Amino acid sequence: MSDAPKKVVLAYSGGLDTSIILKWLQTEYGCEVITFTADLGQGEELEPARRKAELLGIRPENIHIEDLREEFVRDFVFPMFRANALYEGMYLLGTSIARPLISQRLVELAHQHGADAVAHGATGKGNDQVRFELSAYALDPAIKVIAPWREWDLTSRTKLLEFAEANQIPIAKDKRGEAPFSVDANLLHTSSEGKALENPAEEAGAHVYQRTVSPEEAPDTPEYIEVTFERGDAVAINGVTLSPASILTDLNEYGRRHGIGRLDFVENRFVGMKSRGIYETPGGTILLEAHRGIEQITLDSGAGHLKDSLMPRYAELIYNGFWFSPEREMLQAAIDKSQEHVTGTVRLKLYKGSVNCVGRWSEHSLYSEAHVTFEDDAGAYDQKDAAGFIRLNALRLKLLANRNARFK
Amino acid sequence: MSDAPKKVVLAYSGGLDTSIILKWLQTEYGCEVITFTADLGQGEELEPARRKAELLGIRPENIHIEDLREEFVRDFVFPMFRANALYEGMYLLGTSIARPLISQRLVELAHQHGADAVAHGATGKGNDQVRFELSAYALDPAIKVIAPWREWDLTSRTKLLEFAEANQIPIAKDKRGEAPFSVDANLLHTSSEGKALENPAEEAGAHVYQRTVSPEEAPDTPEYIEVTFERGDAVAINGVTLSPASILTDLNEYGRRHGIGRLDFVENRFVGMKSRGIYETPGGTILLEAHRGIEQITLDSGAGHLKDSLMPRYAELIYNGFWFSPEREMLQAAIDKSQEHVTGTVRLKLYKGSVNCVGRWSEHSLYSEAHVTFEDDAGAYDQKDAAGFIRLNALRLKLLANRNARFK
Amino acid sequence: MSDAPKKVVLAYSGGLDTSIILKWLQTEYGCEVITFTADLGQGEELEPARRKAELLGIRPENIHIEDLREEFVRDFVFPMFRANALYEGMYLLGTSIARPLISQRLVELAHQHGADAVAHGATGKGNDQVRFELSAYALDPAIKVIAPWREWDLTSRTKLLEFAEANQIPIAKDKRGEAPFSVDANLLHTSSEGKALENPAEEAGAHVYQRTVSPEEAPDTPEYIEVTFERGDAVAINGVTLSPASILTDLNEYGRRHGIGRLDFVENRFVGMKSRGIYETPGGTILLEAHRGIEQITLDSGAGHLKDSLMPRYAELIYNGFWFSPEREMLQAAIDKSQEHVTGTVRLKLYKGSVNCVGRWSEHSLYSEAHVTFEDDAGAYDQKDAAGFIRLNALRLKLLANRNARFK
Amino acid sequence: MSDAPKKVVLAYSGGLDTSIILKWLQTEYGCEVITFTADLGQGEELEPARRKAELLGIRPENIHIEDLREEFVRDFVFPMFRANALYEGMYLLGTSIARPLISQRLVELAHQHGADAVAHGATGKGNDQVRFELSAYALDPAIKVIAPWREWDLTSRTKLLEFAEANQIPIAKDKRGEAPFSVDANLLHTSSEGKALENPAEEAGAHVYQRTVSPEEAPDTPEYIEVTFERGDAVAINGVTLSPASILTDLNEYGRRHGIGRLDFVENRFVGMKSRGIYETPGGTILLEAHRGIEQITLDSGAGHLKDSLMPRYAELIYNGFWFSPEREMLQAAIDKSQEHVTGTVRLKLYKGSVNCVGRWSEHSLYSEAHVTFEDDAGAYDQKDAAGFIRLNALRLKLLANRNARFK
Repeated sequence: MSDAPKKVVLAYSGGLDTSIILKWLQTEYGCEVITFTADLGQGEELEPARRKAELLGIRPENIHIEDLREEFVRDFVFPMFRANALYEGMYLLGTSIARPLISQRLVELAHQHGADAVAHGATGKGNDQVRFELSAYALDPAIKVIAPWREWDLTSRTKLLEFAEANQIPIAKDKRGEAPFSVDANLLHTSSEGKALENPAEEAGAHVYQRTVSPEEAPDTPEYIEVTFERGDAVAINGVTLSPASILTDLNEYGRRHGIGRLDFVENRFVGMKSRGIYETPGGTILLEAHRGIEQITLDSGAGHLKDSLMPRYAELIYNGFWFSPEREMLQAAIDKSQEHVTGTVRLKLYKGSVNCVGRWSEHSLYSEAHVTFEDDAGAYDQKDAAGFIRLNALRLKLLANRNARFK
Repeated sequence: MSDAPKKVVLAYSGGLDTSIILKWLQTEYGCEVITFTADLGQGEELEPARRKAELLGIRPENIHIEDLREEFVRDFVFPMFRANALYEGMYLLGTSIARPLISQRLVELAHQHGADAVAHGATGKGNDQVRFELSAYALDPAIKVIAPWREWDLTSRTKLLEFAEANQIPIAKDKRGEAPFSVDANLLHTSSEGKALENPAEEAGAHVYQRTVSPEEAPDTPEYIEVTFERGDAVAINGVTLSPASILTDLNEYGRRHGIGRLDFVENRFVGMKSRGIYETPGGTILLEAHRGIEQITLDSGAGHLKDSLMPRYAELIYNGFWFSPEREMLQAAIDKSQEHVTGTVRLKLYKGSVNCVGRWSEHSLYSEAHVTFEDDAGAYDQKDAAGFIRLNALRLKLLANRNARFK
Repeated sequence: MSDAPKKVVLAYSGGLDTSIILKWLQTEYGCEVITFTADLGQGEELEPARRKAELLGIRPENIHIEDLREEFVRDFVFPMFRANALYEGMYLLGTSIARPLISQRLVELAHQHGADAVAHGATGKGNDQVRFELSAYALDPAIKVIAPWREWDLTSRTKLLEFAEANQIPIAKDKRGEAPFSVDANLLHTSSEGKALENPAEEAGAHVYQRTVSPEEAPDTPEYIEVTFERGDAVAINGVTLSPASILTDLNEYGRRHGIGRLDFVENRFVGMKSRGIYETPGGTILLEAHRGIEQITLDSGAGHLKDSLMPRYAELIYNGFWFSPEREMLQAAIDKSQEHVTGTVRLKLYKGSVNCVGRWSEHSLYSEAHVTFEDDAGAYDQKDAAGFIRLNALRLKLLANRNARFK
Repeated sequence: MSDAPKKVVLAYSGGLDTSIILKWLQTEYGCEVITFTADLGQGEELEPARRKAELLGIRPENIHIEDLREEFVRDFVFPMFRANALYEGMYLLGTSIARPLISQRLVELAHQHGADAVAHGATGKGNDQVRFELSAYALDPAIKVIAPWREWDLTSRTKLLEFAEANQIPIAKDKRGEAPFSVDANLLHTSSEGKALENPAEEAGAHVYQRTVSPEEAPDTPEYIEVTFERGDAVAINGVTLSPASILTDLNEYGRRHGIGRLDFVENRFVGMKSRGIYETPGGTILLEAHRGIEQITLDSGAGHLKDSLMPRYAELIYNGFWFSPEREMLQAAIDKSQEHVTGTVRLKLYKGSVNCVGRWSEHSLYSEAHVTFEDDAGAYDQKDAAGFIRLNALRLKLLANRNARFK
């Protein structure tokens, strides 16, 4: 790893920090830089990134700006939601799931350009560096990964701004001062963390939330929507078939309006420390409830309980950056196998921060009113069977009780 | 099981159904009946049960009415909440957790009275029969369990009422007609199921909910409360130390007022069918969020992730009736071990159906602002360590990628 | 289930017990019987079964005799061995894995003949009844299953023989007396249990073992063989490519000769009791060691550890009769996914009851001498990376130690 | 970590490598060195280590030589064997389990001497560095750990010998040349790895095995022994009560004589690479079979299956160095809970490399001949119960089959 990179593909947002990285790569290593800017639904225009890259001397053919929203939702978000994945019981993994796709495109562009390295702007304390780099190495074990925040000596805001000024990097006025906290966004979520949010005892202020109205400001009357699934993936809202990214975009709007999907959370980072984040996942929160709802009638208990027991490990793998790993792929194979009949429609009530499934129906339903009914079931179920069922389930407990009684 | 019971302890609510069972036991088996009526917080007066039992000829010394609320919460509800137990991702197990305690008291009373049997009023289609009986057999493998609903020929409402009339069992006017659905309640929750609720596609009507106001009717301003934990159990609300049952009672009132803890759910019964239930768990829903909140800062990730991976199995055991089993006790030992430092206070926001942890603090906190800070951390964490951490985590992925590349 | 079966497909071995069942079905239900006799490698000639069936009045077109050995190994044994499945740490599931295939053929023949029922000769105390019936119901939920041992009153050896004599069923001389224990055999194993073996404190006598020589009688010099795998399945021995059943047949012969695969075991039956069995699995024991050996170099640790953690559940599912269940299929999907590169050859030493992998090689190997070497590794691995790796893995333990020290 | 250590406790074997480390610590850091030499049953005299330490200038009060064999077996080996722990299905963790105890004593001695650092002689490629350091940090988060092999420039055998000569460190004649492989030993096992063993395709030569005779050289007649357990731990052999270390010592002798416990294994190191080791665990191999044997009759299936499912994770934790972690302690609590009745005696047959349990008995036995018998069971078990048991277990499979049939 000692030799310097010659050509680098940089994950470039167009913002101040990655512009500084761009320039630093040029000056520190004297290497050619290819910029990659992806639209993952973060809600920012990308063309300014092109102009900034040009301003920093990147040749047009080295500037890549791509709309990856459909790919992001179809190949990453939806497979993950088939698992009902929650990290540490609560977090919908909105940041984690975007990293492997970015790394995948960085590596693909490196191959296309004959570049020997990729670079990212994640710091040395967080999870994102791990996710970027594990993904990159899994896709190209010979690639170099440059993580300037772990290498350079620009260790204070002042030094960064000095470097920017010394290198003619334009600094937007509002970037002079320190941001009160750090933000990451994509089509699945917006996360905020750091600085003003570092005391987990203090409630986050209203200004932290950027993606949803507060439940208090949400409409005073509930709204109902219907979400239709096919083989575990959402395919329609209120009967209108939509592409994956459109589904999530629309659910985000429903969630935003009703104040759904806010989470104040202290989590365990893979690198060993606890951190506090404020997450907004409006559409994803609706999607989880909807998916759980359709599984309730279409998934058998054997499959469902196995899924539930595998989920924490699956979520941990994604959180820790192991999307491109054999064990994630094994779990995905199991999960996908379970979704063959997860097809049908749920009815959801949205109201002031809550989403609840209040109805579900499907031609694939396993719910049998004939069996469960309190009314006469016409012989569908013989209650006497339960006696034998219980007695054989109890047999080992009886043998235990007899044994233990001898030693009291 | 062929020989008839001679003396039976009956789980007796004082209602029509268990009164019919009482009489049926007397007439069918000619046996002496001891009644056991427990206050588990279901919100009904128990003294009428005494009068009805007397009316049906039970001798005063054979009538047992007990307030078990503290024992219920301390020895069953709280241990379960240490695990953050959710059945099938959503259900707080409010009915399941009450059954082992009732069975335990039935068996203890049987021993006290020299009875050879216990009896319960659960049907042959549900989970409760399993829970009652597995618990009873685990505590006394020689006990007989009488489940009249699986035995008798009173298979219609008409026949039941005829039997009641023929045996001078008083029938309250509102019991003449069929109840629109079946209800179970205790200090943790109220469940409603059956009949009018048997179509899972249809939203449950407002009248089904008996324990909480609707979110729409809840106050328009949020309320904040603080819950304090010691070693995993809630011990105080807003700084006021309370007994376990009082804690849950108070949380129920907070939850009721804010419309918290409603769940419309289709679940998989142990006996093999799906059923739809409407659950209201106001205090329990708050307690889960609070416990998750305090664990976020006091529980290490190794312990937390292990707990999360064990939880589905633990919840399934309780749901299926295996509270008194070696494997539940093993899991409990592991869970309890993890709770030694789960001590501290959380701040919760209650608003129109939602409860969210918005702050948490503890002398036992593992959260280290020194490590996580975006500011200068004075050497608490060396970002260069991350490079080695990532490279060794990536090593196997690189070896894999090299290998797999040879076979593409 | 009240109405009698009209046409039954019987799992028929040609032995006394299933001949009695055949006659009993004819006399008890007056139904037409179709016999199904499968060669699963149990080592008995099947044509006598045809003659006996004819003698009992079965029409030729209703007699089915099939060689299922290839299907058995290819579709059941090999998939199971991909998982390294061991029930309760020791048992290779030789009986369990044969049952679903028999049930599958019974149901298929029932459909072919328009039969409404299938019948088996398993007793009411064992696991096999569960395996036969769960498989049958999973493949045809409307099928009737007749289990005569749970129904009839032929509850003693004497009554059985009387029934046989009364119905002109020929009784071989050696069947007059009671067998000293019960035997089941197929290409994977031979099991012996019951009667003379019911005391788990007493060593089983030499005569119990029918499939292997004793280690003491095995050759005094070791033998070495090489087994080659492709995608997790054995495909060749000593370089000779063989069909699945031939592979297992040959491994059985190697194992037999060297006294490999004997197991004296007390297991937990699904129906709640413990039982003691003597198992001989000569080829399977070699196959497990061989498969573990090839996985050692071709399977990544992430995949391997996940497989190991899923295995007990997978084995329990097969033991309990849930081969045809969604959760077994989910686990199989995960396991099969892991086997894509489990290709290569192992060298095994066979000697007096033991089989040990002593060498393994593969073009798919992940073993990197360049990384692991004690010699100069030419920069493949930077030992300094380990410092960071350890420090970040230690971080949470340090935070814990600091916290815990405050409360001592 | 930048400032140099002032006083260091060194894990000192008395051999050449740790003598060089000792001198290097003195010269590199100018720090005072305390030596710690433990008898963990590695089979070497320790007094020479004292003389060598003195020769290298260590003051007598700074030399610690301790017999830790009883503590090692009682507090580390036995708790681990309660879990039937096997890493990657095969390895008995003989090296892994010794490291935490050594670290514990290093840290305790550091506290006693007011030392600020500990040092070990493990290399930067292996697992032992991780185990030593995670344990040390978990016990004292402020301790410094010196790992000379990751720091110094003595990167070849030649340089090491030059350093030794330049510093008057005596070099035994047989240490001039390179050892053909590296050896670690303690009361539980001897491991050999590296150099001559680095090709996993080649069988290890006979000279590699130092702890056991070869199966071929073992006695031609089997030997039988009986091992008695109390609450999961072995307490007597052939009826003679022994201390933990004496038990293991005696089992080692039985195993040595009969060629038991050899393992040729390729494993996945925590640091990401595969390595090949030759392990000899004679007594441990016997102990595992014995413990499995006594559990077969004294452990309930619920407890046993839970243990089996937790074991891989437990073993991985120990292998990876997380003995002193909350999750290992949680699992230990669960495992220990299960062992309360694991009391009784097993009979084992030892013969030419194999150990097999051939009998087991206990007053705590759960085996019920009354239930399992093929003979008349006097009503202990009603075979008709099985019908209901099977039908309810099949119910969900039938519902599935009905559903799936609609979509074929």
